[in-house]
Amino acid sequence: MTDDEARRRVAEARVGRLASIDANGQPHVVPICFAVADDQIVSVVDHKQKRTLALRRLDNVRRNPAVQLVVDHYDDDWSLLWWVRISGDGRVVDRGTERDNAIDLLTQKYPQYRERRPEGAVLLIDITDVTSWQAASE
Amino acid sequence: MTDDEARRRVAEARVGRLASIDANGQPHVVPICFAVADDQIVSVVDHKQKRTLALRRLDNVRRNPAVQLVVDHYDDDWSLLWWVRISGDGRVVDRGTERDNAIDLLTQKYPQYRERRPEGAVLLIDITDVTSWQAASE
Repeated sequence: MTDDEARRRVAEARVGRLASIDANGQPHVVPICFAVADDQIVSVVDHKQKRTLALRRLDNVRRNPAVQLVVDHYDDDWSLLWWVRISGDGRVVDRGTERDNAIDLLTQKYPQYRERRPEGAVLLIDITDVTSWQAASE
Repeated sequence: MTDDEARRRVAEARVGRLASIDANGQPHVVPICFAVADDQIVSVVDHKQKRTLALRRLDNVRRNPAVQLVVDHYDDDWSLLWWVRISGDGRVVDRGTERDNAIDLLTQKYPQYRERRPEGAVLLIDITDVTSWQAASE
């Protein structure tokens, strides 16, 4: 798939799975809601998450910014499978314009955030690489 | 959710996302098909994957066995969200009874594997921890 198509699919996805590395050097993976802004992925700690778990990924990123996000489509018809993988450097932003802009984007994408604007810290991921895969038509 | 319920949901899921750590110490995440066997998650390199990408996760595990698998349910109704996360130690098994048993399990779960039995190496994950989260009913 083209790079534009990969980015379109990522922008449209409602959920992705974010991998980071924890304090013990172990991999950590969690489903996240997110939005796409130019060369960034933005996400926020919100009310649907347990506080302790929500903070883990932020702690990880503060210690080690390397993250990877995968957006994929699963179907029992395996000829329809695809994924897009984004590597990047994460940053936690607790306040300021960058945070507010990120929350605006998330609010445009998710009605749930319009009903209840998130109050937590924002995770900004500066995209460094995008790769994709699509099942070959047989 | 109870541990039994968490394991039941994992066993029923058609897809999970597997995080590992690559040669450069960066997180790597990929969707995988898998089956559950007692205290193991089993997966196999199959015909639906590009060879180079399929091998990356195996190379990672050979170098660093720490992996985490997340199985989750996304719904636009956020009161229905849940995830189960499995931490474990991965091993790549190229041949022998352990590999054959794993492929038997995968074949029972996925009709696609019955039509075309996988010929690649098996990834066995010895489960060390299971955690879960479920959205609170409001």
